Order: sequence, then structure tokens, then C-alpha cells
Amino acid sequence: MQRITNSETVKYLGKIIRVSGWVNSRRDHGGIVFLDLRDGSGILQIVATPNLVEGVKEEYVLEIEGEVQKRPIKMVNPELETGEIELKAQKIKILAKADSLPFDLRDLKLTLPRLLDYRPLTLRNRKIRAIFKIEEELISSFRKTMKDLGFTEFESPAIVPATAEGGAEVFHIDYFNHDAYLSQSPQLYKQIVLGAFEKVFTVTHVFRAEPSVTTRHLCEYISLDIEMGFIDSWQDLMDTCENLMKNIFSNIEKNCQRELKIFEASIPKITSKIPRIKMREAQEIIFKRTGKDHRKEMDLDPEDEKEICRFAKEKHGSELIFITHYPTKKRPFYTYPDSEDPEYTLSFDLLCRGLEIVTGGQRINDYKKLTENIKKLGNEVKDFKFYLQTFKYGMPPEGGFALGAERMTKQILGLENIREASLFPRDMGRIDQRLSVLQPKRKKIHPVK
Amino acid sequence: MQRITNSETVKYLGKIIRVSGWVNSRRDHGGIVFLDLRDGSGILQIVATPNLVEGVKEEYVLEIEGEVQKRPIKMVNPELETGEIELKAQKIKILAKADSLPFDLRDLKLTLPRLLDYRPLTLRNRKIRAIFKIEEELISSFRKTMKDLGFTEFESPAIVPATAEGGAEVFHIDYFNHDAYLSQSPQLYKQIVLGAFEKVFTVTHVFRAEPSVTTRHLCEYISLDIEMGFIDSWQDLMDTCENLMKNIFSNIEKNCQRELKIFEASIPKITSKIPRIKMREAQEIIFKRTGKDHRKEMDLDPEDEKEICRFAKEKHGSELIFITHYPTKKRPFYTYPDSEDPEYTLSFDLLCRGLEIVTGGQRINDYKKLTENIKKLGNEVKDFKFYLQTFKYGMPPEGGFALGAERMTKQILGLENIREASLFPRDMGRIDQRLSVLQPKRKKIHPVK
Repeated sequence: MQRITNSETVKYLGKIIRVSGWVNSRRDHGGIVFLDLRDGSGILQIVATPNLVEGVKEEYVLEIEGEVQKRPIKMVNPELETGEIELKAQKIKILAKADSLPFDLRDLKLTLPRLLDYRPLTLRNRKIRAIFKIEEELISSFRKTMKDLGFTEFESPAIVPATAEGGAEVFHIDYFNHDAYLSQSPQLYKQIVLGAFEKVFTVTHVFRAEPSVTTRHLCEYISLDIEMGFIDSWQDLMDTCENLMKNIFSNIEKNCQRELKIFEASIPKITSKIPRIKMREAQEIIFKRTGKDHRKEMDLDPEDEKEICRFAKEKHGSELIFITHYPTKKRPFYTYPDSEDPEYTLSFDLLCRGLEIVTGGQRINDYKKLTENIKKLGNEVKDFKFYLQTFKYGMPPEGGFALGAERMTKQILGLENIREASLFPRDMGRIDQRLSVLQPKRKKIHPVK
Repeated sequence: MQRITNSETVKYLGKIIRVSGWVNSRRDHGGIVFLDLRDGSGILQIVATPNLVEGVKEEYVLEIEGEVQKRPIKMVNPELETGEIELKAQKIKILAKADSLPFDLRDLKLTLPRLLDYRPLTLRNRKIRAIFKIEEELISSFRKTMKDLGFTEFESPAIVPATAEGGAEVFHIDYFNHDAYLSQSPQLYKQIVLGAFEKVFTVTHVFRAEPSVTTRHLCEYISLDIEMGFIDSWQDLMDTCENLMKNIFSNIEKNCQRELKIFEASIPKITSKIPRIKMREAQEIIFKRTGKDHRKEMDLDPEDEKEICRFAKEKHGSELIFITHYPTKKRPFYTYPDSEDPEYTLSFDLLCRGLEIVTGGQRINDYKKLTENIKKLGNEVKDFKFYLQTFKYGMPPEGGFALGAERMTKQILGLENIREASLFPRDMGRIDQRLSVLQPKRKKIHPVK
């Protein structure tokens, strides 16, 4: 007899079928036992006599044969896809036993560190699974939107040579007696590949050796990166980003209703045109609203980002806002300066509900200017020789942006900490298990092969 | 005037339009200059007077306004999508200049090292781009097939703790004064996530510190990984793999005709049922066919793999063959032993045109057996504590497999070296540029932060 998944059982009323799954819960009522059986497709109620399920506990893995029957009216559960039926068990086989659970898996009340210590188990909780269904939909919508717009997908490498963009927060790798690093961004590769395909994107992991613990940073995160050539203006980039956001939100709203409901979350309000204001204007607005004078600062701090988002919501009814024209000094060497005021760049961040989720801008596509900028920032041109070929042999006006998948998931669901939106978050204190538990600090220098 | 992409120009006969792209080639004929303009969508022929294109060379980036007109009959090029039309240029703007090319970009005759030294430029060649269009379609077909089968996609981490599967060929990372490694396989994470979603897959990068140079190995490659629960038999895994192969091949055949034609390649012949034979049987067959006695060897060597593929093609008309039942000693600790002969495992490789492209098998899902096996192979159970939660709290019978994207691309197109199928191949001598050029060996021990 072929196995039927739980969500399909509704089609088999009156039939004898076989199902399998994990015991999500067990309730004993007099002479009857009710099990909620969980599989990849959902939950099915099992009715069994006590002798059939003797010793069966939560998270046991069972294979059950039985008859699909209608539930009594008062037992109907409108929350479940299979809420009008149940399976009357005739035969039960235990596929795997489970230890007694260390906590109530259906109603998790754990601190975040403990939740992560038990990730393989806590991931089975309905609310936790919902986070990763949302993230899957987000990434999948990103990919679909970019493909529909004619972008080519490519795979960006994680191992990079000693020519990272700069910045100290980089992980070092022992590479056959050479130095190599983990990629902080697919930026240079996006541009190289653009030279061949014109419009490109990648879903990639990037790595930051963040020496601090915040609720917004991960040491390994998923970056959704695009780069497009032949732009008429850098505004094209924000238009594309706006279009992408609308698609992602509408797909999540359509395909993840159940998951949003679990979190009592709604997708961010987006207006037909997301407001676009300069960083200096944002600082003026914040000053006027709060008296906090950050008008000479070179960037917005986390509090500023929250305040300007409050402004955007009150003034424009938008939970997203583009902040543009960040100072040249604060952006990487390839950022395009504003010809009207070269102290500022044609760059932007997209903030959502108080947090930056996208960063992007136009890039310098002129070989000479780019080479000069590399030197000006104290880098060695020879380290960028590979990358610079792209510009030496003809590169159109272009730009792009990067979207952090975990940050966006966090903002949609209103999660407190970005670690909740990462299946296996890495930070300075954890790789799966807490590092303090796993290994003492630097017990040995790793031998170089 | 809005820019029109080259492939769309056929709709604008008689109209004045604007196009942009790279100069793929330039031919001067008396008073007329012909340019092939290349953009992300394809090639368009431009006809111009010499004064309009003075100084314009290959790989210059141009914006051109002109009239779309029919080509004279004898000038029609059936190889091109736009082969019946051309654009009569009226106005040309140079968006970016290009240096003189160091070699003929349209007819590459370079050694592989030089081809890779110039990757940003050589990637613009039509034949090279075709490789990555095939690979994009391969990955995209994999993803679509698995989603249609109800699998959940997840992202597997690249940074892993000091608990890799074993094997020396692992890259070490300096991780905040702790030891961490680059993932050699998403295996343990696939199984953990299966515990929550039942059927899962990931497209991920994996890393092997291969201390040798072969035409089959990369230090960073793309692994297409699946894991499925509630299998009735390990044959289910090969059935799923067979189904996947058929889908990938048929999509590539349908959507990449032009790319296959450039390589004069055809997709591998696949029979309705791919032959499945035990490793020991394969060794017998090889012995009978060639006299080469490898019947006591614990694995097939590259020559054996080629020979058994020749056999499969001659005997079964199949360019793919499953080899099963590899010795327990040669497989990782989680591999399921064959109950009929525990010296062998319920594992398989799929060979294609002489090379292994898939490896998989059933996994041990019993907590006790798995724990014992970890100890038996000399590992510390505490290092696997995180992973083992999955089995402690109930895991169904399950298994999976992994497909190497670059290997499969190589076999489809008949490439000589796997590096040709990797955009930015990493090996012991190269990260983008040759390491010998980029940096001297270990000029310093990297400071530990």
C-alpha cells in the first residue's frame, strides 16, 4: 500500500490508507487515544485504541494504516487542512522512538541561546518552521522576479584572494600555504559577470567577522545580489528594487498566509512610489522632529534609521524609505560620485520598519577613474588586476544592490533577533553549539598543510 | 527614447530605435562599416558610415540610434535571431572605450591557464558563455524538479565547527581565536532540516582542500543536494535521482539548443530504467572485458569508471549507470549497511560518460547505531551532539544524494577539464589569478584577531 501524505488524506474518505509521520501530540481520553501526526505536508488526527499506541510518545515516528472517516461535527478543527477528517488506526508500526522531550516543543518558552542549542529539535516547532517557509518564499520570489526581468543567475565564489574590498572584518583561510579569505560580498564578481551577460544576479553566502554581538548582524548570511548594465540613470536601480520589493511582498502575502498568521504579522505597507530622500535631508528631518543633531554625522545610526522610518510612515504611509547620497568617504572605492557634489555618491539604502535591508548604487565604470580610486584609498592596483580587466575592455554604465535575506525576514515577521531568521546562525560565540562548550579557545595552532 | 534590446529589434522594422551593447566585431567594406553589436540578449548587425564609427574597436560599448531595416537577401544570416534585419546607424555615442584585445576574442586559442587568467574577458566569448547558460539551466531544472516533488529548499552554512565528517582535505578558518572549517558537504545539515520538513534540498558551495591537480576536482564546487524521509526502500532514492536526471536532460535539450549546438554536444542517452549493478559485479565485468583484475579493490578507479560506462552503453544503450553497494569501510559513518551483507552499504554512485556525477545512499536513522558508528570510526560523540539530537528525538528511514553541477556540465558538453565549467575555479595554484603571481608563499602568518 502506497504511503499517502497527510494533506492528501482528505481525498480518501472511507478508504483504508497508509500514512507516516512524527507524533506531534498525544491526548488520552478514557478508552481512546488521539494523536496529531505531523509530516512535511501538515497535521492529521489519528484515533486509536490504547493498546495500539502503548508507549508511543511525542516525536515517535510512526507508520499507520487505517480508515479515513469524518470527524464528529463538534470535533471539526477549521485551523487544519485535514480538520474535518481523522484516521481510525488499524495497524501501527513504530519506525523510530524518541527520548522524552526536554521542554514543551509545541509551546516553546526558551531563551534564544537555548532555542539555538536545541535547533535540530526546536526547528520542528510550527512557529519556527514558519520562519523558514517565509525565507524560502522570499528567496524564491527574488529569483523568479529577476529571471522574469531577463537577468542571468550565476554562482559567486566564497573563497577569495587577498584582494577583498577592504575592512578588517574578514575571515582568514589557510589556503595551501597561501592567504585566502571568505568573501564579504560578491560585488567584484557580479561586475565581472555583468561584462558578459549584461544583467546578473546571485543568491550567495557572505561572511563578516563581526567582533561584536548585535541583534542585526550575523557572521554568515544570505545575500540576494543583483547588478545591471546599461542603466540610463541610477534611479533605474531604485525602480528595479521597488519593483522587486512589491513582488516579494505580494508573493509572501499570497503563498504564506498561514505562516504570517502564526506570527500575527502583516507585510510592510508599501506605497506606489517608495519615498526617496537624501541622507542630509533625513538628518534635517530627524533634527526637526527630535532635536537630536546628527547633521554632521557621516551615516545614520540605528536610532536615526528607526526615526526616519517613523517619519516615512506618518508622512507618506510607507513602511519603506530610500535614503540616498551617502558620503563618498563612507562608501567603497567603486561607488559613483554625484557629479553635482562629488563629496556624496549615487548610492542608496532601503530601510524597512527601522532597519536597513538593501544597499546599492551606481558603480564607476570608467577604467581610469576606477584605477585612480583604488590607489587613492591606499590599495595596490596589482591586487585588482583580474577585476580591472572588466573595465579595461569596455564596461557600460551600471549599478546594483544587495538584499539581506535574514534581515528582511526579521522585519516582515517582527522578530527580535536576526539569529531567529538564520537556520544555523554563526556569531563570535556560536557555530551550531556554543564555542565555549565545543572547544576551549585556540587549543592549538592548526597545522599548516 | 527607450532602449530596445537586440533580440526585440525584429519587432521594430522601419522604426527609429535606440540600442546599446558591446562591439563584438567590426568589418570595414569600402565606404561602409558593419558592426556586430552584442548585448545580453544577442547580436545585432549595425551598418554605419566610417565617420560615425571612427576609432571604434572591438569591445567598445556603444549606444546607437538608427532605423531597423531588412537586410539584402544575400546578407541574411540564419544563425542569428536578428539575421534578417540590420540597424542603419544615425547617431552613435561611445559609452566606454576598450583597450586593444590581447588575443582574438571570437576565436579563442588559449591554453587553459591563460583562458582563466583572462576570465573577465574570455567570459565574453560566445562559447564560454554557453557553458554557464547550460549550468544555469541545470541548476534551475534541479530546483524546479525538487520543488514540484514537494521538497523544501534551505540554505546550508559554509562555516562549520571542528566536527567535520572526517578526512584531511578540509580548509581551516581562523574564527575569533577558535578553529572552524569550510563545509565539505551539507550532509549533517540536510538531515537536521529533514527532521522538520521531511523532504529537503539545497544548492550550496562545498570545499575540498585537494592537494593534487586533476581534471575532475575543484577546491570549491556547487553541490546540488537532496535528502528525503519515509523512504520504503533505498531504491526510492535511485528512482528519484533517475527522475531528476530525465528532467534536467529534457530541459537542457529544450532550452539550450543553441548552446548545445555550439559544442556539437548532445545530452547523454538515458534509458527508461538506468542500469543498476553492484560494485563487485562491475569489477567482474571489467575483469572479463579487459583482463584487469580489480576484484579485490575497495573502489573503482577512474579507468574502471570509464570501462563500466563503455559496457553500459554497449550492453544497455545507456550513457548512465548506477554502481551500488560500496564497501562499508569506504563510506562515511552515517551510511546504512546492507542487512544481507554488512560489509557493504546501501549506497550508490551515478556515473555519466565515464565519470561519477552523483553519490548517495540510505542513512542510519537509529540513534544508538549511529552513536556506535561514530565511536567505531574513532570520533568523539560529543562533537556530534548537536547533529545527534535529530536522531535522539525520532528520525524516519531516509536517504539522499548529491550531484556535482560542474561535473555534470563537463560531461554534457564534453569539456576536457572541470575548470572550464567553473566561472572562477579555485585550486591549489589559483584563486582568480595564479597564486604564484598574486603572492609569495606564506609571506606572513596572518595575525589572529
